[in-house]
Amino acid sequence: MIPPSQLEDFFSYLRFPSISANPERREAMTACAQWLVRKLHQLGFAAAAHPTGGPPVVLARSSFSRARKTVLVYGHYDVQPVDPLPLWHRDPFDPYLDGDKVVARGATDNKGQTLCHLLGAEATLQARGELPVNLLFLIEGEEEIGSPHLAAFLEQHAAELACDAIVVSDTSMAGPGHPAITCGLRGIACLEVKISGPKTDLHSGMFGGAVANPATELVRLLARLHDASGVITVPGFYDEVLPVSAGERAGWQELPYDAQAMAGAAGVQKLAGERKFTPLERLWGRPTAEINGLTSGYQGAGSKTIIPHEASAKLSFRLVPKQQPELIAARIQEYLHSLCPETVRLVVTYDHGGEPFLADVHTPMGQAARSALAEVFGRPPVFIREGLSIPIVSLLQRMLKKDPLLIGLGMADCNAHGPNETFPLEQLEKGIRLSQVLMERFARV
Amino acid sequence: MIPPSQLEDFFSYLRFPSISANPERREAMTACAQWLVRKLHQLGFAAAAHPTGGPPVVLARSSFSRARKTVLVYGHYDVQPVDPLPLWHRDPFDPYLDGDKVVARGATDNKGQTLCHLLGAEATLQARGELPVNLLFLIEGEEEIGSPHLAAFLEQHAAELACDAIVVSDTSMAGPGHPAITCGLRGIACLEVKISGPKTDLHSGMFGGAVANPATELVRLLARLHDASGVITVPGFYDEVLPVSAGERAGWQELPYDAQAMAGAAGVQKLAGERKFTPLERLWGRPTAEINGLTSGYQGAGSKTIIPHEASAKLSFRLVPKQQPELIAARIQEYLHSLCPETVRLVVTYDHGGEPFLADVHTPMGQAARSALAEVFGRPPVFIREGLSIPIVSLLQRMLKKDPLLIGLGMADCNAHGPNETFPLEQLEKGIRLSQVLMERFARV
Repeated sequence: MIPPSQLEDFFSYLRFPSISANPERREAMTACAQWLVRKLHQLGFAAAAHPTGGPPVVLARSSFSRARKTVLVYGHYDVQPVDPLPLWHRDPFDPYLDGDKVVARGATDNKGQTLCHLLGAEATLQARGELPVNLLFLIEGEEEIGSPHLAAFLEQHAAELACDAIVVSDTSMAGPGHPAITCGLRGIACLEVKISGPKTDLHSGMFGGAVANPATELVRLLARLHDASGVITVPGFYDEVLPVSAGERAGWQELPYDAQAMAGAAGVQKLAGERKFTPLERLWGRPTAEINGLTSGYQGAGSKTIIPHEASAKLSFRLVPKQQPELIAARIQEYLHSLCPETVRLVVTYDHGGEPFLADVHTPMGQAARSALAEVFGRPPVFIREGLSIPIVSLLQRMLKKDPLLIGLGMADCNAHGPNETFPLEQLEKGIRLSQVLMERFARV
Repeated sequence: MIPPSQLEDFFSYLRFPSISANPERREAMTACAQWLVRKLHQLGFAAAAHPTGGPPVVLARSSFSRARKTVLVYGHYDVQPVDPLPLWHRDPFDPYLDGDKVVARGATDNKGQTLCHLLGAEATLQARGELPVNLLFLIEGEEEIGSPHLAAFLEQHAAELACDAIVVSDTSMAGPGHPAITCGLRGIACLEVKISGPKTDLHSGMFGGAVANPATELVRLLARLHDASGVITVPGFYDEVLPVSAGERAGWQELPYDAQAMAGAAGVQKLAGERKFTPLERLWGRPTAEINGLTSGYQGAGSKTIIPHEASAKLSFRLVPKQQPELIAARIQEYLHSLCPETVRLVVTYDHGGEPFLADVHTPMGQAARSALAEVFGRPPVFIREGLSIPIVSLLQRMLKKDPLLIGLGMADCNAHGPNETFPLEQLEKGIRLSQVLMERFARV
């Protein structure tokens, strides 16, 4: 059972519409950061919301002893946009219980998972009056837009952030009751493609046939991102891809992975993708090219017979270890420009990117995490990768010189980034307990 | 000089936001029809707004004499949607003068052009107390959405609509001061294509690589509407196309047609299209496939890394004489379904269509129109086609058994269907005068 005060905290945290992609939400971002600071003050932490060029970064530390290990927990209080809003059953920022799940934007990604560690610390402090480790919280507000100000922040606060272990709970378990430590993540490169033609929308009868249609030129370009078998056709795209080792692949084959369950979670009849690879290899070990959005011309009811003056697409490319976002983005830009006819104008903007991640988890701290997970969930964790991108993880790895331990509490069906995002109460309860056991185990290393 | 009362009438007519594609505008449609009825009553016409399944049809007749010729003037009071609204310099339904042009949605298409004939009748009645012909006005409110209720209306009112000549002013002149009679128009087939995949937007990191992306599948389908040289690839698409006769093509070559001026009006550096044909042939004698709108996934600021659950496009195909909209739509549906992979679901909806038009204008009434144009504009009209579609024209031709005379007063740069649509005051003035002379000439046939 979750004590009501913990659920109240969760709901309060979820009520902030902290969408980092939306500049109009700047006030909500600041208010959300201040809520975290107040909560951390209640726990006796030294906490502050540090200004950046974007939303503030919350940094907090428990009472400190040189005799204790220092553990840094990273999380983010910003959330994804909520479009398309009509698909939500209720206001995304008015959290509610649907059976045994909390529904709201950010429920799993990442407010629920971050809160487990705050409430774990609170529970330990209430029970024992002190924590077994020095605990640092680093909770930022720009993870969903590529953490543009975090590298500078880490550099400025490097001394305060020195630690023995880094914990990030922003990934998923292997399945219900089946814990996992995530050793690899995909990187990402986000681009926007815009094609402009006539100076204004044109009557398609008066001009159609003699003027290039930007929407047509856009689809012709985007159709050439993949070949017929699903392989990405950008020249050089795969040049730096590190193949998954035979050992790691063998480990994946042992996993209780169910392609049919995945199709069910996605709501599709059958999976798709590169034929030469298993679905798990496609998700964890292979890069992708996705169209995230298309916009052009008339989108309302009925028809409007125009040649749109422009057409644009949002693209994201998931990258695997050794692929470099900037280099990949440059190759994509070059490729698209090589395809574009001279009758329209093409602009390809590199929006942001994040490096892929690969970690060594066979360390003493990794062993401690493994033992904590085994105790709380009744079975040892498996070592997996995930297909998503948490650019900050590579950044923490590089700047703090520790391999972050990615201990996810999400579920594949929590609908992170989609409408009606959830976090099961069971995960909240187990997550709070896990945080407590984790700190105990770390203290003993 | 335009008398102020005429300009006031024009502005009043333009203020109704009579967008037939938008069901929320139903009240504005009715109010606009009632304004026309009031205006026609002031002129002494028997006029009424007749209910249909959609917006009413305005039908009006002047005092009648068997001794006089009967002339039917067709027009439409509905207008195109106004998106994208930000491109308008002012509210599209708050008309204003920009130099010597009236700016508002519907200014040229078709309120300005229709009003010329009403104000012409008013001027003749004021000057002479009677009209030289029996004059009928048929002004509908669904032209921009394919006139779904007009065929039934024409059938019900066939006896009242019997006439000696049909005049439609909904096309353009050949150039400034250069009148034209339009002998041919393209038809149209409008379709909507929707591809659905996952049950909801998915996190592109958690699912990307293993689930088909509807936006990707949509662009791959749409990219196959044309081959590399701009020829439409739908099987059977050109089967019924009637080639332009050598004589008609020779006439077009005499026209003062300026490809560079057309590129300038469109705001493009160079024209595009099928290489085997001149720009004029592409516009007047060749069918097209245009994407009018694209919608999928996230379209806001920044990025959202999703696999969209669906993607859709609005398409319109301009057709040339002998192509049948329903048959063409069926071939497009079949073709797109043949291309669609089984990992997504495709729905292709045929929205509406209109037949292409070809008329014989070398008739006594055609000669009368030619002479009226020569008098008002100081030079005889040329015989042209236009690339746009006025489905009602073929319908009038078939049901009233007269070849409509398409006497356009629009200009290529009036921006019909686009933002900041205009109608020059000079065209209003000349159009009113033309309407008066036209009736005189018809009376003498």
